[in-house]
Amino acid sequence: MSRFFSEKYRALTPYTPGEQPQDQAYVKLNTNESPFPPSPKAILLAAEAAAHLELYSDPTCHDLTERLAGHLGVSPEEVLLTNGSDEILNFAFMAFCDAAHPAVFPDITYGFYPVFARLNGVPYEELPLREDFSVDVDAYCGIGKTIFLANPNAPTGIALPRSEIERILQSNPDNVVVVDEAYVDFGAESCVPLIHTYDNLLVTQTFSKSRSMAGARLGFGVGSKALIRDLNTIKYSTNPYNINRMTMAAGYGVLEDEAYTRMNCAQIMETRAYTADALRKRGFSVLNSSANFLFAKSDRIDGAQLYLELKNRGVLVRHFTLERLKAYNRITIGSREQMETLLSTIDTILEEHA
Amino acid sequence: MSRFFSEKYRALTPYTPGEQPQDQAYVKLNTNESPFPPSPKAILLAAEAAAHLELYSDPTCHDLTERLAGHLGVSPEEVLLTNGSDEILNFAFMAFCDAAHPAVFPDITYGFYPVFARLNGVPYEELPLREDFSVDVDAYCGIGKTIFLANPNAPTGIALPRSEIERILQSNPDNVVVVDEAYVDFGAESCVPLIHTYDNLLVTQTFSKSRSMAGARLGFGVGSKALIRDLNTIKYSTNPYNINRMTMAAGYGVLEDEAYTRMNCAQIMETRAYTADALRKRGFSVLNSSANFLFAKSDRIDGAQLYLELKNRGVLVRHFTLERLKAYNRITIGSREQMETLLSTIDTILEEHA
Repeated sequence: MSRFFSEKYRALTPYTPGEQPQDQAYVKLNTNESPFPPSPKAILLAAEAAAHLELYSDPTCHDLTERLAGHLGVSPEEVLLTNGSDEILNFAFMAFCDAAHPAVFPDITYGFYPVFARLNGVPYEELPLREDFSVDVDAYCGIGKTIFLANPNAPTGIALPRSEIERILQSNPDNVVVVDEAYVDFGAESCVPLIHTYDNLLVTQTFSKSRSMAGARLGFGVGSKALIRDLNTIKYSTNPYNINRMTMAAGYGVLEDEAYTRMNCAQIMETRAYTADALRKRGFSVLNSSANFLFAKSDRIDGAQLYLELKNRGVLVRHFTLERLKAYNRITIGSREQMETLLSTIDTILEEHA
Repeated sequence: MSRFFSEKYRALTPYTPGEQPQDQAYVKLNTNESPFPPSPKAILLAAEAAAHLELYSDPTCHDLTERLAGHLGVSPEEVLLTNGSDEILNFAFMAFCDAAHPAVFPDITYGFYPVFARLNGVPYEELPLREDFSVDVDAYCGIGKTIFLANPNAPTGIALPRSEIERILQSNPDNVVVVDEAYVDFGAESCVPLIHTYDNLLVTQTFSKSRSMAGARLGFGVGSKALIRDLNTIKYSTNPYNINRMTMAAGYGVLEDEAYTRMNCAQIMETRAYTADALRKRGFSVLNSSANFLFAKSDRIDGAQLYLELKNRGVLVRHFTLERLKAYNRITIGSREQMETLLSTIDTILEEHA
């Protein structure tokens, strides 16, 4: 730390991203990336855009916003595109939380929420998940704070039905409820259709997972025009040109190829069912996942040890050291071939421990 | 504004970007873009990266940081790459300014500084430029605040010699001095070589102007390892994957082709001299510019009117309504052909006003 660093941030503990080894030597099942390349239409349009980088990107993201709004069945004024969904989440912490509007989220969820809260000096409360790792919906009803819920939740993969989120929305009419749907395309119910009913609802999504665009950094929020206007005030006071030309073009291309996205999601859900079944047959407890990952613990090997032994053998999964999570590993659903490698590597490890 | 918007931000007036018409119908001399396409190496590497967007980008920007550090003659720990230089500037306002460390900058400079200050709740002071639009260096000496200086300054284009900035650095040893060198490659002296002498110096630069990558969004800061560590704490608490794969690849490509950048800068400086001369011959006052734009006022036509009449005829320049600036227009140096169009259009307008 320098002697110049503001007191405000001296106690900050930043978010720790999953390992991103750049040598490609691993079967990489640790950051919930898609095993499929982006749509050929996305690749083509992005490559074309690369030839015109001398011009600024459109700060209003006009064309992509129109296209995305059409896809979502909302108006363009109800959408804001950002540099990954991390950016829209940070904007939401900025815009809708303060000392008078503390944040609340589960104690086990996306690890960036408490970081955003501390970054913005926002008081926050973490409500414990129930014993079975499900969100205790009643605890959020009428809580009167700005609520952040990942649905499906991470790293559990467990989804709430839309009707349960509606209970939270109805009972907190004076507080914004942010539903972070990064993983919604793998089998959960989206709350986007509710934005015209609840003016306190902000839904966030990303192109990183189901659309194979993690490396392009594209996310967005959907909500009432008034909420989106507030978030735009933050955006234009922070980084108006937050999305580059190539990413914008890639996003447009992938939305033109929705069949490709749907096919990939179906494939991943099928591989998820196969992998969950295979892990259970090997004595693992596997939570019911609606996401592109599984959260699983073995009855024979400690979570940290399994993580390390997998890594030594070239398979990366994600391990969390939190007490309630440490027996588990979060395993991204890759291609069928990658999951076979995972399973046979687990077999080898378990044999050695027998 | 929604009823949920935090009190903190209700009075925010966001930055107004220059017009970005997407129809390409204009001779666009309003946002200081390069008239040259990005280096073929940048285009090629970016297009290749588009095929692998399913994987997250490297949050450490390892390869590009190494390459850039080599280019700058500093170590990788002394560099932080960001999503445009707006992001590093905002990070600097966050990290090095607070109620105890107010910000100070010229009253006429990059219009985003006061927005960043208000966004972050930082008190700030604006010191008047002198009558000739130059920075009053003595006013900053020993001022004991966090100093932001664009060098060359915008929209004037006037540069300070490095020795003058050194006086400011020496006389404010307990405050960070941010030197924003967005336009430095067009004839000003960079302060990068001073970072090993002054631990209170942060230099910011961008790939937007001299490297023809405005649409890719890539900027960076250079300073002591301790300053860069602080800025990394902010980055990893805000948006760890702030730079996408394609932009990173394009940045690498353009650094491999430094001869192309140097040639383009030389061309722009030559066209700048030609255009300044031509404008002066037409009765304009033109400030001495070390940037890729000119700040000029006519002795025959009001600044706002010239802006509008140029726009009506398909030539976009940038006009500012501030009292001291309103007689002027900021004119980006485009290709020689674009400048001929500008000059002949000005001739037509002046004839009609004769």
